[in-house]
Amino acid sequence: MKTVTAGVLLIGDELLSGRTQDTNLRTIAEFLAPLGVQIGEARILADEAEVISANVREFSDRFDYVFTTGGIGPTHDDITADCIAAAFDLDISQRQDAVDELLKRYDPDDLNAARLRMARIPDGASLIKNPVSLAPGFQTRNVFTLAGVPQIMRAMLEDIEHRIEGGTVMAKRTIAVKGKGEGDVGGPLAAIAAKYPDVSIGSYPHFDGDGYGLNIVIRAFNSSDLDACETSIAEFLES
Amino acid sequence: MKTVTAGVLLIGDELLSGRTQDTNLRTIAEFLAPLGVQIGEARILADEAEVISANVREFSDRFDYVFTTGGIGPTHDDITADCIAAAFDLDISQRQDAVDELLKRYDPDDLNAARLRMARIPDGASLIKNPVSLAPGFQTRNVFTLAGVPQIMRAMLEDIEHRIEGGTVMAKRTIAVKGKGEGDVGGPLAAIAAKYPDVSIGSYPHFDGDGYGLNIVIRAFNSSDLDACETSIAEFLES
Repeated sequence: MKTVTAGVLLIGDELLSGRTQDTNLRTIAEFLAPLGVQIGEARILADEAEVISANVREFSDRFDYVFTTGGIGPTHDDITADCIAAAFDLDISQRQDAVDELLKRYDPDDLNAARLRMARIPDGASLIKNPVSLAPGFQTRNVFTLAGVPQIMRAMLEDIEHRIEGGTVMAKRTIAVKGKGEGDVGGPLAAIAAKYPDVSIGSYPHFDGDGYGLNIVIRAFNSSDLDACETSIAEFLES
Repeated sequence: MKTVTAGVLLIGDELLSGRTQDTNLRTIAEFLAPLGVQIGEARILADEAEVISANVREFSDRFDYVFTTGGIGPTHDDITADCIAAAFDLDISQRQDAVDELLKRYDPDDLNAARLRMARIPDGASLIKNPVSLAPGFQTRNVFTLAGVPQIMRAMLEDIEHRIEGGTVMAKRTIAVKGKGEGDVGGPLAAIAAKYPDVSIGSYPHFDGDGYGLNIVIRAFNSSDLDACETSIAEFLES
């Protein structure tokens, strides 16, 4: 069994002010799950350079891979590239390979100083293709720096899969529970969880307007553990 | 001008696995904005007791208020109350005032050990009313511990407003830009941002299927600063 982890840094004041609902975390999680990579923690950070740099450093040490989203556009509040460089004490400059990408979209005359900011890349980073709007993301060590706009972020993931050395994929099953609440299943479920320490058992109530429903989600690296646990839960639910 | 800040800890493996899309952060941000409270950072944490306790302690020190969501139900993976107690080195026990709340919903016979877990409250905490499903949240020092189910979380906020000593409310305006991209406005916007250091200027592109749109959002504590900045941006956009 091989455990591979990722940390995610979602960058932007707009995510903290309530202006924008993040959806990138979920997209990244769904991208990573079949590669056997579990997200260990995510943080939503304001546009503050020192905070961003410190978090990039911490997450790069803690996790196998780090994803950042947001702050790589052409305006003054797009500071992520400089923060990544600062985090690893790297120089940063306008790179010709990134300019070449931009020239596929823009006439040279339209490539003003603001747009050329999008070609500022930390030294030694490799570019991540952006098939939507061309301005590239980039990989610095184990950190992938992606756009914040969901359609662009999602498209950039296509150029990341081949860079990831994944781990053991967790098998997962969802058991929909009818006619019982969390409080009814809590005791027996705790006993089952104690019996199968290698199975992660989550209990997720939801409210659908008519009332509460409940899903039990079980996850494990070993599928025979998962089978045995699922049988125990089914037996309890039938009893 | 009085700055008041909050940190938000969204707790639950399901938020990191991609199973569940968080919406609570945005709800909390929209609740706090008119009270003059800015969210400084949010973190999405796995169901790991030591991680949760350490983050509660750190955020309680860093921010005026802390909100946690998730992990206060009746099942074995609901560990938030114990983590809050551990964070502040408090004892935790089944409290009669919380049991009384549960008895408004459940017959005494249905109040099994699992459901009674929801009455475990750190010593000295005050209860936060849950008008939806009765199991209370609680306030420990500057930390508000709320449910994860969005409908319940939202309802609990009604019993929090009176506990918050708010700050200066930031005035905000949104300027929709037509026919210009971020790369066109980046240079002039940077100059305007330098001229108005007390105004936060954000530039938010979006993709609507037909192409890219752009909103400029300006925020400031002082509304005459905001007026002057808005005028500068309008003059540039008309030029």
